[in-house]
Amino acid sequence: MRIDIITVLPELLESPLGHSIMKRAQDKGLLQVVVHDLRAFGHGKHRQVDDYQYGGGAGMVMMAEPLVNCIEQLQAERGYDEVIYMTPDGKRFAQPTANRLSLLTNLMIICGHYKGIDERVREHFVTMEISIGDFVLSGGELPAAMVVDAVGRLLPGVLNDETSALFDSFQDNLLAPPVYTRPEEFRGWKVPDILLSGHSRKIEDWRYEQALKRTQERRPDLLEGE
Amino acid sequence: MRIDIITVLPELLESPLGHSIMKRAQDKGLLQVVVHDLRAFGHGKHRQVDDYQYGGGAGMVMMAEPLVNCIEQLQAERGYDEVIYMTPDGKRFAQPTANRLSLLTNLMIICGHYKGIDERVREHFVTMEISIGDFVLSGGELPAAMVVDAVGRLLPGVLNDETSALFDSFQDNLLAPPVYTRPEEFRGWKVPDILLSGHSRKIEDWRYEQALKRTQERRPDLLEGE
Repeated sequence: MRIDIITVLPELLESPLGHSIMKRAQDKGLLQVVVHDLRAFGHGKHRQVDDYQYGGGAGMVMMAEPLVNCIEQLQAERGYDEVIYMTPDGKRFAQPTANRLSLLTNLMIICGHYKGIDERVREHFVTMEISIGDFVLSGGELPAAMVVDAVGRLLPGVLNDETSALFDSFQDNLLAPPVYTRPEEFRGWKVPDILLSGHSRKIEDWRYEQALKRTQERRPDLLEGE
Repeated sequence: MRIDIITVLPELLESPLGHSIMKRAQDKGLLQVVVHDLRAFGHGKHRQVDDYQYGGGAGMVMMAEPLVNCIEQLQAERGYDEVIYMTPDGKRFAQPTANRLSLLTNLMIICGHYKGIDERVREHFVTMEISIGDFVLSGGELPAAMVVDAVGRLLPGVLNDETSALFDSFQDNLLAPPVYTRPEEFRGWKVPDILLSGHSRKIEDWRYEQALKRTQERRPDLLEGE
């Protein structure tokens, strides 16, 4: 899988993409992430990529032309399954979307900044708009890095233990059950006896009950969705 | 405001916290973000911080002791308003939470990894659990960086134009209206006439209508919440 990210702050993405699982996925050749500095497509010697918004008001808007030039240069090199724009008014990102994206070949992600991008780019070039949640950030870089992480870890071979991703939260509409590790007793607080019992069937039942209970308490909406 | 982040991957947070608005906030002395490497509190010469989970199954669990030693060392230095754990089964992060956190003085954020942290730390030390959304990531570092960004940009003086944060999406339960910048015509697609009219009252009305329309189409739930 290849993911191209278009941003005015490429340096912000260096460490999230350069360590841990994302680095391993790229080193193994399973995932290629290419970050493009939008300023290379900017206007004039200041490499301008944004301007005041029509109609007045605070905040700058990212201009259509540099973005479209970058998008089209990439599209001339290969076909893209989706041109994604990270924006708080996009569709809420969730595990089913991550699952779907992980089956595709080439993705392009545009990181918004300032007041956002010129509406004409959204209308005519963007094929998918993703929001990470109902809150405002300085830009789309961290959300884009999260999409890369959520999708990248689903690619076969990326996680050391392939079973691991399957038992994560949300893959079965349940939150994960509580987990414990050594020591058995820490400051007087003990690990539940059942987990030390060795009865794998009973442990499985307990974990399911706990997952169900936690989901009912914290996220009943996940159960209603079934 | 001071934010302490506890992580097994401090290097992952370098560039998100070291650029743009987060850097400016720290340079101005408005926000101090201190990243703590949990391995400094790990066991033995390998600085072990995780172990197999009781009851069996794939995935490691972060041990209670290194975490608690780190938390308590920080708590001995100053009081914390919240000890936050980033976890997919926490409370969904949204703008009202960012607003509330931005009024506090000292926050601690624990980044989960692997299968999560020992339940006893959650029960006895964590005061707030935050989820970024219904999807699974490799760790809590990117979510933690997003919380720092969402909260940090609300601190007075961090944004150049203080009015800017007030007109963002979600501060009024509406999505933002479409935005446009130069040129007036791009590849035959024109900026709506109203935005070029100079009638600031009419422009304001148009933007409100557009924001309302977009919210109705994309996120009717935001309007129901009123």
